[in-house]
Amino acid sequence: MLVDKGFFLLDHSSIQNEGKVYLVGAGPGDPDLLTVKAVRTLGLADIVLHDALVSAQVLALVSPEAQVINVGKRCGKKSISQEEINSLLVGYATAGKTVIRLKSGDPSIFGRAGEELDCLREAGLEIEIVPGITASLAAAARVKAPLTDRRMADQLLFISAHRRPGKDTCDWPAVVTSRTTVVIYMPGEYAGIAEDLRQAGLTGSTPCAIVSMVSSREEQWHQTTLESLPEAPGLPSPCILIVGETLAAAPSREIRSLCRENVPSHVEFRQPSESAV
Amino acid sequence: MLVDKGFFLLDHSSIQNEGKVYLVGAGPGDPDLLTVKAVRTLGLADIVLHDALVSAQVLALVSPEAQVINVGKRCGKKSISQEEINSLLVGYATAGKTVIRLKSGDPSIFGRAGEELDCLREAGLEIEIVPGITASLAAAARVKAPLTDRRMADQLLFISAHRRPGKDTCDWPAVVTSRTTVVIYMPGEYAGIAEDLRQAGLTGSTPCAIVSMVSSREEQWHQTTLESLPEAPGLPSPCILIVGETLAAAPSREIRSLCRENVPSHVEFRQPSESAV
Repeated sequence: MLVDKGFFLLDHSSIQNEGKVYLVGAGPGDPDLLTVKAVRTLGLADIVLHDALVSAQVLALVSPEAQVINVGKRCGKKSISQEEINSLLVGYATAGKTVIRLKSGDPSIFGRAGEELDCLREAGLEIEIVPGITASLAAAARVKAPLTDRRMADQLLFISAHRRPGKDTCDWPAVVTSRTTVVIYMPGEYAGIAEDLRQAGLTGSTPCAIVSMVSSREEQWHQTTLESLPEAPGLPSPCILIVGETLAAAPSREIRSLCRENVPSHVEFRQPSESAV
Repeated sequence: MLVDKGFFLLDHSSIQNEGKVYLVGAGPGDPDLLTVKAVRTLGLADIVLHDALVSAQVLALVSPEAQVINVGKRCGKKSISQEEINSLLVGYATAGKTVIRLKSGDPSIFGRAGEELDCLREAGLEIEIVPGITASLAAAARVKAPLTDRRMADQLLFISAHRRPGKDTCDWPAVVTSRTTVVIYMPGEYAGIAEDLRQAGLTGSTPCAIVSMVSSREEQWHQTTLESLPEAPGLPSPCILIVGETLAAAPSREIRSLCRENVPSHVEFRQPSESAV
């Protein structure tokens, strides 16, 4: 049942103890990349339901009185189903709690926010979304490269390799051109992606960069080409794969220079050849 | 000339008065949507070169001692060329200043960062990029809708309608499917966009939302369909056009409810029929 929000507010007196759910973007990991609004909102929480990928440094900003629950996947195994998460959100908010659903990156991108929002709306609950820095923006910043560049990439495409169960066909070949920067969130295994992108017409020399846990202390980069992508190492989640001339071309300078200086020491660069089997 | 950064740093003693350039994302307008790092960086500036679209509320956070220069377009007319901006950045930083290039949204998306970074690298200057919330993330948050949803949109495509002079062909038909949320930054005139997207195979009933100055006091929304898009009103810059089932379908509930409540009063909703000629 969709509750008409206008009517709902007319009856405000009876629901003043009603809770509220904030969907908050935790950004890529570095708490400095949270928005000002996200930091303030974390201080308001009674309950925080967070993805496994949200960093400890971000969780440290949650109000000390709040109950913090990890509802994310661990080792690819979901601890709590999406239906159970929806039910917890509605349950706590209906009980009058200020609930934060804390999502890695930005809540509106590959975060199943749509399903949670539908449930919250059906329950007539107050909702607020606080945006976050999505991983690709942080990756571009780290290597000092743009995601679009009018000289070589007019468009930016975000795709997730995690699809709905049963949906095994891939639309990528239809959506990729050589003037597109493609960012694949949660890329999984690389061989299929490389094949799809080659079939879409991209050449084997197209630059690729894999970025793991960007902006965190555990950040790792691997740079390669579409041709050598199948041999790339699996890096820890959260991970993105960037394909295209703008961003993927720049890190060769930036990441190498970071490694040469060895500052910060946690940034690792492996030459494509090192990963070749 | 590309300066090898490793070598450059070996010679650090001679350049300790060298300045630094920060490319900082100003976000969509609301200073609460700045990152913590952006706020801190604004306080360090000797010189700020900003786009015309950066909000007054964000500029108010700049260190009071800093010199603030608007290098953006006004009424579509550029006050300073890109080459002049590059030259100012290099000049001030070489003179030892801490320079902030403050860009609306995120620096890596449609901001000509690539050209500025190339110049700064050639001059051997220290660079840092601070990410920002790009307009589409803020728009999704405002109407409480996702940009991707595994039930209806697997991919998210950002395109700018502003192209390099002389490049008048459009790749959009090749990159759009019905399961793509398309965000067009700086859409300009709508008739050509609508025609391109219809030719790409999208139906006339595909939902569209135009968002102007999202997150600011002057925020305006207009909701329509691809069929009626050519009659949509021109809204003030910065402006984005969102096309697709996820985000564009949700605002009909959210924006209408905002208007009914009249809170906040600055959010305007016009029914598609009102804009029909």
